[in-house]
Amino acid sequence: MDRQIEGLKNKLLDELKEFLRMPSVSARSTQGDEASFRECAEWVRSRFEEAGAEARLMETDGHPVVFAEVGEGERTLLSYGHYDVQPPEPLELWESDPFEPDVRDGSIFARGVADDKGDVMARIQALKLYSEESGPLPFRLKFLIEGEEEVGSPSLRGFVQGNKELLRADACVWEGSIKDEAGQPMIFCGTKGLLYVELRAKGASHDLHSMYGGIAPNPAWRLVQTLRTVKDENGEITLDGLDELADEPSEEELEAIDSIPFDEAALKASWGVDELDRGLAGQDALKEMLLKPTANIAGIQSGYTEAGSKTIVPSEAFVKMDFRLVMGQSPGEVLELLRGHLKERGFEDIEVLHLNGLEAAKTPVSSPVVRTAVETWKEMGHEEPVVYPTIGGSGPTSLVATRLGIPTVMTGAVANPESRIHAPNESARLDDYFEAIAYFVRFFHKFAS
Amino acid sequence: MDRQIEGLKNKLLDELKEFLRMPSVSARSTQGDEASFRECAEWVRSRFEEAGAEARLMETDGHPVVFAEVGEGERTLLSYGHYDVQPPEPLELWESDPFEPDVRDGSIFARGVADDKGDVMARIQALKLYSEESGPLPFRLKFLIEGEEEVGSPSLRGFVQGNKELLRADACVWEGSIKDEAGQPMIFCGTKGLLYVELRAKGASHDLHSMYGGIAPNPAWRLVQTLRTVKDENGEITLDGLDELADEPSEEELEAIDSIPFDEAALKASWGVDELDRGLAGQDALKEMLLKPTANIAGIQSGYTEAGSKTIVPSEAFVKMDFRLVMGQSPGEVLELLRGHLKERGFEDIEVLHLNGLEAAKTPVSSPVVRTAVETWKEMGHEEPVVYPTIGGSGPTSLVATRLGIPTVMTGAVANPESRIHAPNESARLDDYFEAIAYFVRFFHKFAS
Repeated sequence: MDRQIEGLKNKLLDELKEFLRMPSVSARSTQGDEASFRECAEWVRSRFEEAGAEARLMETDGHPVVFAEVGEGERTLLSYGHYDVQPPEPLELWESDPFEPDVRDGSIFARGVADDKGDVMARIQALKLYSEESGPLPFRLKFLIEGEEEVGSPSLRGFVQGNKELLRADACVWEGSIKDEAGQPMIFCGTKGLLYVELRAKGASHDLHSMYGGIAPNPAWRLVQTLRTVKDENGEITLDGLDELADEPSEEELEAIDSIPFDEAALKASWGVDELDRGLAGQDALKEMLLKPTANIAGIQSGYTEAGSKTIVPSEAFVKMDFRLVMGQSPGEVLELLRGHLKERGFEDIEVLHLNGLEAAKTPVSSPVVRTAVETWKEMGHEEPVVYPTIGGSGPTSLVATRLGIPTVMTGAVANPESRIHAPNESARLDDYFEAIAYFVRFFHKFAS
Repeated sequence: MDRQIEGLKNKLLDELKEFLRMPSVSARSTQGDEASFRECAEWVRSRFEEAGAEARLMETDGHPVVFAEVGEGERTLLSYGHYDVQPPEPLELWESDPFEPDVRDGSIFARGVADDKGDVMARIQALKLYSEESGPLPFRLKFLIEGEEEVGSPSLRGFVQGNKELLRADACVWEGSIKDEAGQPMIFCGTKGLLYVELRAKGASHDLHSMYGGIAPNPAWRLVQTLRTVKDENGEITLDGLDELADEPSEEELEAIDSIPFDEAALKASWGVDELDRGLAGQDALKEMLLKPTANIAGIQSGYTEAGSKTIVPSEAFVKMDFRLVMGQSPGEVLELLRGHLKERGFEDIEVLHLNGLEAAKTPVSSPVVRTAVETWKEMGHEEPVVYPTIGGSGPTSLVATRLGIPTVMTGAVANPESRIHAPNESARLDDYFEAIAYFVRFFHKFAS
């Protein structure tokens, strides 16, 4: 199989590059460019057809879903991915055009290559290679490729709700995963929930001369005062009632976490930092990341932010925050907690905009599909794939894993720890990309047996 | 005297217009146009000569100073002003060309007319009218007209330091002042100091996926934690040692402040707010503005600040802060306090960039020059000129008032509350302009006596 890929590398790569050139940034497409976005979906559909699947665009309240089906058999596997990408900004930090794939030092650089276009393409190409070598798939394989994952999958809930039968499956392989610092593939069995909000403070109707700084309401300070109620001075979250909502992790989960090798030094080196937040270290840091909620500031802005000095009292300020949530902490409930928390403390003037929300989800590490994911890696020579009961990130996994009750796993690792997902100079190693294709060919064989 | 001006109005106005047509924008002149800037200085010099003074351009590290001298006698008066103006942008908001003076509804619209070309011109014209009617000035009058006030007077310190003898005087009239909403002239006897800094926090070398939000250092949160040590939860400044540096206001100052009419309702209405900061009201608010230091956030930025949501842990964050300081609180010392304050609390990682600083300055309200300023207004029929011991704003006043020890007052009100200083459609009322000329003719008579 690897030999088969060897001879096709250029062709496989060219096809991936074509995908990567399409600027399918979901965050900005609401301001137009719907046509080029749809063009990208249409292109994905055509790739499925070329790989022998029946594929169609299905309308949603937002960007269309690409749905594809192929193969016959008793069992059904669902594959989820997305064709949209994060915004490329800040553009000046990219060493090459984010939408003109550039191969350097054995890696390919482009927005979306590691999240999630590489994974989507690898699976389509795996399907094609499987069929060419082994004939028709002996099970039913369904693909659900959405176009709004990077903006929180706002239409996916409605889509899943309205297409339960269509999506029915015995197991689901979700997006992709990642190889760790040591090159071992990771397998993820769950995702955190997400609540994304923007808090807004208002001051005067226009910026004021800062001679009034002592008496004019300053919305930037108001936000600081608001934020100091969300974390204490040690950086611990102090949001009323948040801890009480959390489910306790299971024994099997805790055991799995204990056997995850956590290379703190490598992580710090890759980030260029000397310390983790709050001096966290070793397995404590890992447990914090996997088992605890976060209250992250993703962005904040107010007033004059150009070079030099301007002496004003700003008229408005906002902060964008994402809360990563664990099982039990529904984003809707946490939003209410937040509103209540602010009201309780006299911050009724702070406007809370709800930008999006995702439920946490989890599949038991002992599920058959997790075993298949592990065994496939082992057969490929990766002796110690690492099973994460859950990860720090979020996705609409719960729609499939919880709502449809389909055991769901993230596997097939195009990305690596240096992939800079969501950041400038996103990349994937070519070797990892080709291995992901080979992985899925083998996974399909294993799933069929 | 007013009759004398009456007949000359057109001529006086034409001369002012000529001055206003010169685009002496100091902020942009560093990028060239040095020649036309110097032409403006040269033109001012020629006006002084025409008014009978000896005048010359004096070189500095930046734009030249126009220095002029006239009259003989025991006493010496120094007049400070500037021939540079703020940038006119945004141009689209001007109703007429910022550099083609336009008279509408009794006001003249042009960049710099209220800050500070109107004041400069009014005093030169006052000098000429005085001489024509009363002969040579019976005291020494010196003019220091700089060309960099609107960019923070970077060369003025060196100039003053190098020309102490030349600038020696018994009193100084500084720039101009302004008439209040009721049409009463204000007289300012002091300015606050200013320390402008940028605090910078660093996280990872690049933005991270916010799945790491629980363990990655977040520079935006780091800034919030930093800022929470600068003000307490009630908004009171808690910078170590700041209060201790402050000089106590004098009894006469407090009395003067008590007699300032403070229209809180009008201020709130003009700002569109229901409350002042910390619920301050009435004379308490006025005292806060005039007698207390500020710790203002002029701007803050980190991470993703465009529309919608992006889930990152930002790699850097900065906040721009201006501290308005009272007498005793030297910006250099306060900068050291701030550094010490942060170090003491474990915030050595916060980079403190010093952007600029100005000393506070104050002249006693009982000084003869203040009395002269008040009495002159009264003789002109303004029964209740309002004496501010100090204002909330800052300027390079201390170079003259403190370094040279010259009692300094801001008087002669070309501007009014609708003058839009530093903003589009800057204007002055023609009546106020002519009255400022008459004011200085009378002021010269009074100073001589």
